[in-house]
Amino acid sequence: MALGLNTMLEKSETLLGSDHASVVSMNLFVALLCACIVLGHLLGKTRWMNESITALIIGSCTGIVILLISGGKSSRILVFSEDLFFIYLLPPIIFNAGFQVKKKHFFRNFMTIMLFGAIGTLISFVIISLGAIHFLEKMNIGDLTISDYLAIGAIFSATDSVCTLQVLKQEETPLLYSLVFGEGVVNDATSVVLFNAIQRFDLTHINSAIALEFAGNFFYLFILSTALGVAAGLLSAFVIKKLYFESHATNREVALMMLLAYLSYMLAELFHLSSILTVFFCGIVMSHYTWHNVTDKSKITTRHTFAALSFLAEIFIFLYVGMDALDIEKWDVVRNSPGQSIGVSSILLGLILLGRAAFVFPLSFLSNLTKSSTDERIDWKKQVTIWWAGLMRGAVSMALAYNQFTTSGHTKLLGNAIMITSTISVVLFSTVVFGLLTKPLVKHLQPPSKRLTTPISSFHEPLISSQGQSEYNIDDHPISLGMFWNTPSRAIHHYWRTFDDAVMRRIFGGRGVSERVPGSPIDTSVRLWIEDVDNKEIHIEP
Amino acid sequence: MALGLNTMLEKSETLLGSDHASVVSMNLFVALLCACIVLGHLLGKTRWMNESITALIIGSCTGIVILLISGGKSSRILVFSEDLFFIYLLPPIIFNAGFQVKKKHFFRNFMTIMLFGAIGTLISFVIISLGAIHFLEKMNIGDLTISDYLAIGAIFSATDSVCTLQVLKQEETPLLYSLVFGEGVVNDATSVVLFNAIQRFDLTHINSAIALEFAGNFFYLFILSTALGVAAGLLSAFVIKKLYFESHATNREVALMMLLAYLSYMLAELFHLSSILTVFFCGIVMSHYTWHNVTDKSKITTRHTFAALSFLAEIFIFLYVGMDALDIEKWDVVRNSPGQSIGVSSILLGLILLGRAAFVFPLSFLSNLTKSSTDERIDWKKQVTIWWAGLMRGAVSMALAYNQFTTSGHTKLLGNAIMITSTISVVLFSTVVFGLLTKPLVKHLQPPSKRLTTPISSFHEPLISSQGQSEYNIDDHPISLGMFWNTPSRAIHHYWRTFDDAVMRRIFGGRGVSERVPGSPIDTSVRLWIEDVDNKEIHIEP
Repeated sequence: MALGLNTMLEKSETLLGSDHASVVSMNLFVALLCACIVLGHLLGKTRWMNESITALIIGSCTGIVILLISGGKSSRILVFSEDLFFIYLLPPIIFNAGFQVKKKHFFRNFMTIMLFGAIGTLISFVIISLGAIHFLEKMNIGDLTISDYLAIGAIFSATDSVCTLQVLKQEETPLLYSLVFGEGVVNDATSVVLFNAIQRFDLTHINSAIALEFAGNFFYLFILSTALGVAAGLLSAFVIKKLYFESHATNREVALMMLLAYLSYMLAELFHLSSILTVFFCGIVMSHYTWHNVTDKSKITTRHTFAALSFLAEIFIFLYVGMDALDIEKWDVVRNSPGQSIGVSSILLGLILLGRAAFVFPLSFLSNLTKSSTDERIDWKKQVTIWWAGLMRGAVSMALAYNQFTTSGHTKLLGNAIMITSTISVVLFSTVVFGLLTKPLVKHLQPPSKRLTTPISSFHEPLISSQGQSEYNIDDHPISLGMFWNTPSRAIHHYWRTFDDAVMRRIFGGRGVSERVPGSPIDTSVRLWIEDVDNKEIHIEP
Repeated sequence: MALGLNTMLEKSETLLGSDHASVVSMNLFVALLCACIVLGHLLGKTRWMNESITALIIGSCTGIVILLISGGKSSRILVFSEDLFFIYLLPPIIFNAGFQVKKKHFFRNFMTIMLFGAIGTLISFVIISLGAIHFLEKMNIGDLTISDYLAIGAIFSATDSVCTLQVLKQEETPLLYSLVFGEGVVNDATSVVLFNAIQRFDLTHINSAIALEFAGNFFYLFILSTALGVAAGLLSAFVIKKLYFESHATNREVALMMLLAYLSYMLAELFHLSSILTVFFCGIVMSHYTWHNVTDKSKITTRHTFAALSFLAEIFIFLYVGMDALDIEKWDVVRNSPGQSIGVSSILLGLILLGRAAFVFPLSFLSNLTKSSTDERIDWKKQVTIWWAGLMRGAVSMALAYNQFTTSGHTKLLGNAIMITSTISVVLFSTVVFGLLTKPLVKHLQPPSKRLTTPISSFHEPLISSQGQSEYNIDDHPISLGMFWNTPSRAIHHYWRTFDDAVMRRIFGGRGVSERVPGSPIDTSVRLWIEDVDNKEIHIEP
């Protein structure tokens, strides 16, 4: 709850007799967060709004009020800090995403997700960079180097998985959700890796050797980051299984899971890996193994604590971006060239639309070639939804732009100021306008309920499994070599689950292997309730 | 999980390309926290150790290792910051204490707790201050003013409720627990209020007018702080009851409760009230009203999330104090006068023992006069336990001492350095030695099980109550005026519960009034399990 108000602390010497203004700001910020939750809930009943947009709007309004009160001096109560974002706010969001994602869908579409997230982002990066070089150089907006243009490509390739999550519902459109969301995570990681590579490499003269090194660097980071996340997750499973905390130890288990997840993130930072990927895979492994080794109360608590922290971090970010958008300093510099600023923002928005279209449709076509069943194919309606749902830009773009174009939050050069204000405009416009249109679009293109009402069990596999029973009981038929070539991901899935049952779950626990309730008085409906299968179906809560 | 690593952030410019050393420290600190949990669990099976002491020892050992590696330069990976302590670590601990305390016992002994916590702390403060003036002035340890001596009184009157909580068990000795723990919270608040008053008032010439103003100030703070906490708690109950979040909204409910609790703490800071008291009463009110308005999953999640956060904060503090204890700078100044430092520490320990004895025994006698049943009386064994269990000094003393005797964490003057090192010695000695002896002492003086095995229902009131049924079903007989004089607290309790049933719970919800599960499939044992009555009795978890 006290995540990252560190910027306040830098100002206040001591709270016991502390600087009044910073305590006022902290109060205001916490009160605004409460307001966002309450108003977001009330407005969320309409089909247009969601908490992100509410927070953005409340943030902007507060910004205006502060601007008026302070006589046009400042609109912010906190200075945007990348640290705040990357150290405190992003880890819970991405970890929770990994922890809650439906693994079956994620891994079944693993190849497609990687195709979209890695190759797609690269395509988008190239198109936006080239477009930026082509259009912005003509506009004469100050000294932007080749690195700056490449950075622009990376900045605007980062989709906003946070906002996407609020628009698509895992229960309603599971395939789309896992594709868009999985792509979002890989995409975030790819953008950050690209961005770091751009800052590190000397890109004034690109040749094939540097390009190759660049690619090698990328895969090295990708594989090591994933391995670290998996290792941290397995460690937590092993420790909790071996220690076998007594039944009162819910607090210890929850604390240990939190700490290990955070440790994986910080270790990735330490080794200059992609911490986003690491903590995402740590979340996946923890939900696959660790979660089954803890008490029932820890199960419920971790599910909802991680979700609540992630939810708070999301609102925090949007409230903050809204408030920061009106910061007068940035707009002061570009005041004399409003046309340029609007022009740059429009060009960037156009490039984002184009860059995304340039990989979603071709890559979907490629992906469809490998799928045999029509059910798993991405039809054109889904393609349009995927294209649209990934257009929003958010806090990752903001943080990267601040990193590239400012020195500790302040902007003086015209070119830099224009890039910052354009980033803010693009983030606000894409989140509010594209975001508002996404829900109706999804409703229109993907009429719900047909999938939802009938065979829920088809995508919620039976969850009560007795000792040692496999959880992989869908399409569990023998596999041939021919099939491997036709549907490689299914074959991999088959071998993986054999290995998982025989080796991994023996060591690290997991569903059915190390559940703590052998002959408990909890009946089936309650077990389903604890495992959070589908509230709508069970109707325990009215 | 990322609570208050702000000190790190001040150093690191940006994490994306950030200062390596600070990331290393953060990793080390998180890893040490994990180690404390795991080792604390393994060692906790013995009757001597607990997590606090484990963390202290691990902290000290790490301090030694860092000292050796850095060649005697530093033993700390984080600089002790009062902000870290008062803004991030203390609120979850105190809030959780209020949230988990058994209200029935707390309020039944309310008068005794207030007597011990307020009057007792004042007595202890006077004795330690006078003793310090008497003994320390003779020792010639540098320029200490009258304010310094009074501050010493306040610093060493603050018992360590955190450590106490780990030693006494609510289930085994409910009366003792509520007395010692309740006293600890009121005592913390009293000490902080006293300390602030000392810093604010001009105490060079004390007269009756100033003393009266001092007392008035104290009661004003006490009443307003309590009122603010109650108001925040009631607000959360009202909002959640009125909004009636749908059944999926566990995350929102949990986030809102966290935010409002934190807001109450920060508001108290804003108005210069006692934030400890505020957040404690906010916790009590939230567990009495708000907790019953949320979904079953929120119930379990809040219970354990708050406990886990509090647990983490506790370990963090002890690990930190252990690490800070070996900081070379402080010891450098007093190196030439080891005798003085040991002398001061011993005198202070003696004064603590005396100051506590001086109020526990007389006030217990006073308290016993008002009790009619022998069951509620504090016999001499209990008195000894109360005396002993409150001897530990902890993080509050450390934070206050740093505030009084250092300028932003650094000590140069001899007098100040001696006071800091003595505080550290007293904290370490009292926590480790007194702490280690407390468990055996409690076992010896309060043989367990007699109360525990037989009538559990006598202190766990029936928890499944139908619509509108009163929860106050123990000694619910009519009340006469005569009885009011004999047992005033029981009479107050009677009027309060009538009022609570008739008015408060209509508006704010509460047990039986706003439970969300009218005809749910969850049976009795599961309901008891959700409400966390007593795991040992129900045996759902093995």
